[in-house]
Amino acid sequence: MVDIATRVHNHRWKIDPIVRSLIDTDFYKLLMCQSVFRNKPDTQVTFSLINRTKSVRLADLVDEGELREQLDHIRSLSLSRGESTWMRGNTFYGKRQMFTPEFMDWFEALRLPPYHLEKRDGQYELTFEGSWPEVMLWEIPALAVLMELRSRAVLNQMGKFELQVLYARAMTKLWEKVERLRGVEGLRIADFGTRRRHSFLWQDWCVQAMGEGLGETFVGTSNCLIAKNRDLEAIGTNAHELPMVYAALAEDDAALARAPYEVLSDWHEEHDGNLRMILPDTYGTAGFLENAPDWLAGWTGIRIDSGDPATGAETAIRWWQERGEDPRQKLIIFSDGLDEEKIIALHAQFAGRVRVSFGWGTLLTNDFRGLTPEDALAPFSLVCKAVAANGRPTVKLSDNPRKAMGPAEEIARYKRVFGVGEQEEQAVVV
Amino acid sequence: MVDIATRVHNHRWKIDPIVRSLIDTDFYKLLMCQSVFRNKPDTQVTFSLINRTKSVRLADLVDEGELREQLDHIRSLSLSRGESTWMRGNTFYGKRQMFTPEFMDWFEALRLPPYHLEKRDGQYELTFEGSWPEVMLWEIPALAVLMELRSRAVLNQMGKFELQVLYARAMTKLWEKVERLRGVEGLRIADFGTRRRHSFLWQDWCVQAMGEGLGETFVGTSNCLIAKNRDLEAIGTNAHELPMVYAALAEDDAALARAPYEVLSDWHEEHDGNLRMILPDTYGTAGFLENAPDWLAGWTGIRIDSGDPATGAETAIRWWQERGEDPRQKLIIFSDGLDEEKIIALHAQFAGRVRVSFGWGTLLTNDFRGLTPEDALAPFSLVCKAVAANGRPTVKLSDNPRKAMGPAEEIARYKRVFGVGEQEEQAVVV
Repeated sequence: MVDIATRVHNHRWKIDPIVRSLIDTDFYKLLMCQSVFRNKPDTQVTFSLINRTKSVRLADLVDEGELREQLDHIRSLSLSRGESTWMRGNTFYGKRQMFTPEFMDWFEALRLPPYHLEKRDGQYELTFEGSWPEVMLWEIPALAVLMELRSRAVLNQMGKFELQVLYARAMTKLWEKVERLRGVEGLRIADFGTRRRHSFLWQDWCVQAMGEGLGETFVGTSNCLIAKNRDLEAIGTNAHELPMVYAALAEDDAALARAPYEVLSDWHEEHDGNLRMILPDTYGTAGFLENAPDWLAGWTGIRIDSGDPATGAETAIRWWQERGEDPRQKLIIFSDGLDEEKIIALHAQFAGRVRVSFGWGTLLTNDFRGLTPEDALAPFSLVCKAVAANGRPTVKLSDNPRKAMGPAEEIARYKRVFGVGEQEEQAVVV
Repeated sequence: MVDIATRVHNHRWKIDPIVRSLIDTDFYKLLMCQSVFRNKPDTQVTFSLINRTKSVRLADLVDEGELREQLDHIRSLSLSRGESTWMRGNTFYGKRQMFTPEFMDWFEALRLPPYHLEKRDGQYELTFEGSWPEVMLWEIPALAVLMELRSRAVLNQMGKFELQVLYARAMTKLWEKVERLRGVEGLRIADFGTRRRHSFLWQDWCVQAMGEGLGETFVGTSNCLIAKNRDLEAIGTNAHELPMVYAALAEDDAALARAPYEVLSDWHEEHDGNLRMILPDTYGTAGFLENAPDWLAGWTGIRIDSGDPATGAETAIRWWQERGEDPRQKLIIFSDGLDEEKIIALHAQFAGRVRVSFGWGTLLTNDFRGLTPEDALAPFSLVCKAVAANGRPTVKLSDNPRKAMGPAEEIARYKRVFGVGEQEEQAVVV
């Protein structure tokens, strides 16, 4: 029987919204947002979309009108009562009331600020300006909208059964990864694939398939909406935007050198346990660890998000040993460019020496490589970053010069201040 | 929105019926049924299920109670008004009123006769006795029920996503065949896969996918219900049961030798055009053609259903040439153990020399080989055959001794009467 009401309802949609909830975002965004709301609420920032894969000409593929409709729809969203209840009442990382009543009152009233959109050279220039806690919440939905509109542009050309076979192939591909991971003892993997997912429904499918296929090995998802709907742990800690904006706000070189530690000092006051994760690579891991205050060595672990991951992990282990900490009590989270083979290899290398966990992103939720002619659905490297704070440009160095961001003279200054020398180039997978 | 009524309705089903219509059967069964109804309505026959794949222990896999429920459900079926309208009003092979009003009146009143079911040595002994036009209609639904109950027995062990990935893999497998066939100019393929399909829904999917993927190359399906529902051509002519029963009814060796030609003489009166297809292998193709009356060389074509198909086709072409016929005007239908590679090879060998068409069966609608541990869903060789007529055993020789059927002394007698010497053994694919 056809549900006539549902059918009529579906047909009168003006658009098929890609992002339908303010918590269809990464958990760490909400944690960071609360921290910013508490510590730097008046900072004015600019976030900007950057497509590192120039060969994917987004402005040729994606209709500007459709993009505006999707972005406008996101601006119409506000936190629903059920979402608010979940944030206020749920246990995150073993803690109740992770989000304070003050923050929740603010978040419940929030609508996302305006965006600025232009076409240039086959790409979209999409920027967001305003107060940091508001603007920062654009990052994930903006990325998800562009990724999914690009998917739709390609899918629009395909027949009904061709589409079904496309998803059949993608499902098979993911399941083969699950089967390879299933045999590995003690593995812990979370979904980190919201920002560059093929689509919302596909991410939701991948998360559920991981749950059935991997059982306890699958520890949760960074996506709050999916975590809520599927009764999973919401996973995530913090990201580069905190040190990048803190650093941009620094008045002189001495303040700049202190900025990354100030971020973690603020975080230290707010969080404990598994949320005390260091992200050391914003201005070079080696220098960051060398100059770190002793209390940081007491933190739970380190997330490795650029550079050669095994090298990064060895550096971290040595650092803990030098500071008198037992690495076997520490946690390393790998989250850069992972696929199942790299996960298995890194786990084999480090399990037993340190606690290991994996944040698996793009190649979990968007591995459509090889499934269409000319690889038109292959994932690409789209980011949305803080590019300025209170009128000053931000800088990111990372452990891979190809991921560096910012004006050249500022990059040079940051390299000098943080003592970053030659860096090894790594291909940016996604 | 959930359609509550549908959900309640689904939950109160006692069983999920596998065969839901008397026309969920092969078109040639209905054509033959009408011929039998006209020419031999009072013949008493026994049909019997035979599992040639002894390693598949059906009685261990399939619950007897469930099997009885499915068979009982089939006995409760009668032709619906829409089905009757389709049979009476549709054009088959370019002809209106293919089915006579007398036959349709009888068919509309028909319920299938009782069955007899016993377990022996891990197999089911399933037999049907009664008048030929009634009993013969059990063949296809009986096979379809056992094939699908075996599928269900295996599927029952699987998780939700494991199931989805299973079908994803099967879809991908079929689509890859479609992609290989798509490039071949002038190909003509019909679905002949009802009897050994994985399930009804899967056959329905395969047929639709073939339609989208192959366009004009896909000429129709042998399944009447799917042909009706999907607005496709119903395809099929005649089968071994006609010569087998006619032969068993023969009073002496001379009558036996005439029997296969009497079948086609009766058919000649009823049908013309593309329905005049010779199935020459029941008692050996070579002898059948050698002794055939001249008017048979005027028929449209030959269906090759056992033995080496290329050898059979060369034999047919030579025979037409010897009888002064132009093979390029003739049609050869290959229908035995086909998969896409064999289809492509046979088409390459014979296209241009003769008109070629393919009836693709088990490996179209049930190629689950390699998709489950221990290949628990691989298709197997189940048949349901006329084993006796008016108290006498039937015999089939075919062009492959492994497909021979009947008591040993009768096989020897038939071989003598039809002059069948040494035959080359061929593996029975499915």
